[in-house]
Amino acid sequence: MYRTEVAKAMLMAELSRSSGVPVATIKYYLREGLLPPGAAISATRAEYGPAHLRRLRLIRALLEIGEVPVAAIRKILAVVDEESVSAHVMLGAVQYELGPHPGRPAGADQHWQAASREVDALLADLGWTVTTGAPARTLLVATLAALRRTESAPPGPGLRAYAEAVAALAAAEVSSLLPEDREITGNSRVALAESAVVGMVLHERILIAVHRLAQEDASSRYFG
Amino acid sequence: MYRTEVAKAMLMAELSRSSGVPVATIKYYLREGLLPPGAAISATRAEYGPAHLRRLRLIRALLEIGEVPVAAIRKILAVVDEESVSAHVMLGAVQYELGPHPGRPAGADQHWQAASREVDALLADLGWTVTTGAPARTLLVATLAALRRTESAPPGPGLRAYAEAVAALAAAEVSSLLPEDREITGNSRVALAESAVVGMVLHERILIAVHRLAQEDASSRYFG
Repeated sequence: MYRTEVAKAMLMAELSRSSGVPVATIKYYLREGLLPPGAAISATRAEYGPAHLRRLRLIRALLEIGEVPVAAIRKILAVVDEESVSAHVMLGAVQYELGPHPGRPAGADQHWQAASREVDALLADLGWTVTTGAPARTLLVATLAALRRTESAPPGPGLRAYAEAVAALAAAEVSSLLPEDREITGNSRVALAESAVVGMVLHERILIAVHRLAQEDASSRYFG
Repeated sequence: MYRTEVAKAMLMAELSRSSGVPVATIKYYLREGLLPPGAAISATRAEYGPAHLRRLRLIRALLEIGEVPVAAIRKILAVVDEESVSAHVMLGAVQYELGPHPGRPAGADQHWQAASREVDALLADLGWTVTTGAPARTLLVATLAALRRTESAPPGPGLRAYAEAVAALAAAEVSSLLPEDREITGNSRVALAESAVVGMVLHERILIAVHRLAQEDASSRYFG
């Protein structure tokens, strides 16, 4: 799946047919600088190649599956294009732009601080490598703080149980992004970024859906 | 936490102070029929009791934590009030109104049908009790169909791995909703519904956040 190659150069109409993206939309991406210009063959015509097709697919995945806004797509594409940046940082750039984006409160109250210490202790304990600015870390702290603030919150299974439940899933998801030859340069960076968006969004959705079904089954046993 | 009792009756201003809900908002809930009227003590004044306070807390949890629209809250409250309906069905009514609400496509294509069979097989295999109309089931089918349709989708760990990873979590979450005396009638139905909203929303958010952190850690190992 990292090898969708089209041998010949294409005019705009053909790029539109091959990608399924309307000409007006392609022109919009060109104006916004998301898609680099084609090679001019006359004053009004340009040719596009397989790299344009791959990039269009990545843009569509970010927009349609990731629901990432155009400004954030521009940031991601800059990281994809900068080959000196590791694939790990590139995947982080993709994940960090996927919503939700919880805000850090101006003044962190005692619940926020306690939740933040709880998350730090968990990550240290598990030896997970996570940046301090990871939006998922802020989301986790915000959620644990909300649970601490809410009198009617049920205790649930505890934070560590969640981490242990998902660790192997996440490892299988991420390792399945590796190209067979494990080479990640140029063209395959774009393809990797596309697979990462698709995988991150859809695998998370599977997790959410299956978790809700498991709750329904548990509810039938405890409350049925 | 199922026993927040206020001994005396309150006027509107006191109900507002005790609940933290503005008077204008309480009046809106009364007009919308979400909150039952108080006991009239004169032409312009009514008294409210602890049941009003509990119900206000449930409404706030549904609105603020669950982000459930007013029309859906009305449906949930009707189920909460109908004591002949089991607590299991009541919890289902809560979960089913939490978004996202994926639409079933008008004409299910081959990918949808294959995904639907995959989900049926999994549920039968695990022996999970889930209604055919569960929105999470539709969400799961829609997501698996999208993965099948998307050429660049990474394979990931497979559906069954997700189910096995979350089953114990869901059981611990749901069982932690049970009141100590396991009696669920009248007042405690309202409290149970409130705890269920808080737990379902915030526990799911923990799951999502921890899963993303696990992905980041896995990415540092595979792509760092």
